[in-house]
Amino acid sequence: MPRNQQILLDNRPRDAATAENFRLVTVDTPPLAEGQVLVRHHYLSLDPYMRGRMNDSKSYAACQPLGEVMLGGTVGEVVESRHARFKVGDKVVGMGGWQEYSVVDGDAPGALRVVDASVVPLSYYLGAVGMPGVTAWYGLTQIIEPQPGQTLTVSAATGAVGSAFVALAKARGCRVVGIAGGPEKCRYATEELRFDACIDHRAHGDLKALSQALKAACPDGIDGHFENVGGYVLDAVLLRANPFARVALCGMIAGYDGQPLPLVNPALMLINRMRVEGFIVSEHMQLWPQALKELAALVTAGTLRPRESITQGLASAPEAFLGLLRGRNFGKQLVQLV
Amino acid sequence: MPRNQQILLDNRPRDAATAENFRLVTVDTPPLAEGQVLVRHHYLSLDPYMRGRMNDSKSYAACQPLGEVMLGGTVGEVVESRHARFKVGDKVVGMGGWQEYSVVDGDAPGALRVVDASVVPLSYYLGAVGMPGVTAWYGLTQIIEPQPGQTLTVSAATGAVGSAFVALAKARGCRVVGIAGGPEKCRYATEELRFDACIDHRAHGDLKALSQALKAACPDGIDGHFENVGGYVLDAVLLRANPFARVALCGMIAGYDGQPLPLVNPALMLINRMRVEGFIVSEHMQLWPQALKELAALVTAGTLRPRESITQGLASAPEAFLGLLRGRNFGKQLVQLV
Repeated sequence: MPRNQQILLDNRPRDAATAENFRLVTVDTPPLAEGQVLVRHHYLSLDPYMRGRMNDSKSYAACQPLGEVMLGGTVGEVVESRHARFKVGDKVVGMGGWQEYSVVDGDAPGALRVVDASVVPLSYYLGAVGMPGVTAWYGLTQIIEPQPGQTLTVSAATGAVGSAFVALAKARGCRVVGIAGGPEKCRYATEELRFDACIDHRAHGDLKALSQALKAACPDGIDGHFENVGGYVLDAVLLRANPFARVALCGMIAGYDGQPLPLVNPALMLINRMRVEGFIVSEHMQLWPQALKELAALVTAGTLRPRESITQGLASAPEAFLGLLRGRNFGKQLVQLV
Repeated sequence: MPRNQQILLDNRPRDAATAENFRLVTVDTPPLAEGQVLVRHHYLSLDPYMRGRMNDSKSYAACQPLGEVMLGGTVGEVVESRHARFKVGDKVVGMGGWQEYSVVDGDAPGALRVVDASVVPLSYYLGAVGMPGVTAWYGLTQIIEPQPGQTLTVSAATGAVGSAFVALAKARGCRVVGIAGGPEKCRYATEELRFDACIDHRAHGDLKALSQALKAACPDGIDGHFENVGGYVLDAVLLRANPFARVALCGMIAGYDGQPLPLVNPALMLINRMRVEGFIVSEHMQLWPQALKELAALVTAGTLRPRESITQGLASAPEAFLGLLRGRNFGKQLVQLV
């Protein structure tokens, strides 16, 4: 029985999350029951949605129980199996959580999915060809539904979702303008990710300034927006939205710490006859195969080249996660565990 | 040539609209050109959307030009015709504006529609079987798309739109809770309009109080909301919304006077995976025949019994309109002109 390091949610944040909310423990992996699989995690995915689950309040997912392993997506390798469908050596994606090993019921629907590490690197199944990629795909194709030539915007542009979004949107003939924090990310957005323009929200730190920057970068207005952040970014987008613009609401990261984040002028949703729709990609599993197929093809073709921020060892996860909430990551945030 | 009283937009409101924004003038009706029709208006419709058009700012319709007749829906009778399709005596609905007569190009698409005064009273074509009724129908059927047994809410519940909304929603097996101003309107909502419950927002004048009242009136949460008002009503609804709830944004009347009306917690749109969509019913003319047919059938069956607030004479229009903006009307606001 290998020893298994785990990170538990020890207590809930009062306002901003801190490293003290987490606790690292070491336990034995239990013996497998019939039908179970032991997975050794190679990578743990860190994602903004985890912050929402740390709250006790009504959130858009079951809240993370106290004293239990933090939930999270993982990719790894089957090291022991008592299930006919999974063989030792299989590479699998699942929701293994913030730990080095997980014991998984192989029959639970969607619990484990075997992936092919020869198609794309294993870590990509947690990013561009995984949940973040499908998130971008869903918001773009199911909510924004763009026409060629339309102008789309996306916040957190250089993150895992944003970089998949621009590749998917460019493939549909759209003009894509990113919003990101800092000149380095903006340069990366235009030079590497093929954004048509990128606005540094740190250089445009209030509604008026960001709105003017959007006006300059989107002379034909905004037809669709993918919201990863919330706050004044969304306010600024509403000011530049065209009639019948659509907004896919995927993240309100700035609000997770509990600050009130009002929308200054919601009447613009009416004035512009907009559709604003929130979604959680895990509620639309039937669309994942179609989305993953397109995402893998874009990676293979080289038009989707994911950038990753990788820290080493499970103990690094809390600080990496807190950095992600503050925008310190650059690309998909992962923790490497082997 | 009959003399024609008109009300012009004289100047734009600085904040709240006032009677001084309007000017009453009397002119001669011009002689008809070939293809034109002279309509004598029986009723002028007063509607909240008119306030938005009085502003110079970007609004959800072309702004009302200064020095010209206020735009508005009218129903009346053809008194002179140089168009083959319209006969003297025909009853017609159109956008004749705030005046006693209008000269209409009979060939302009949608300019005039002949109606049958023997089916429902003429004034109803400006309310239950007209634009407000179709507005309720569109929001309900095209955005909220309710299932039988679901709980729906509507603000300005006893107005022209609200009273059509409840009739249409009850016909679809929904539970419908109204929000209206004052005990008299609430009593009317439940006793006459068949609302399952009605909340007096004057007795619940802040977000917390209204949210608690909604919780009591909607024990199963809110599945769909039709927003005629905006402001803290929408905030309170978001707090009680079920997952996948839909909101049809039709009016943000409280914001027309220019006060900022923020949405306190827009993240709830994401948390509840909601769809919030604004619309203008005149942009969906292809659906009007279907909607009007259902509305007329409900009136004929007696399940939609419109209440009207009627003032006499064109000069009464400005004060009646300002009262409408302040919720002083009770039912569809009309001005009788003959």
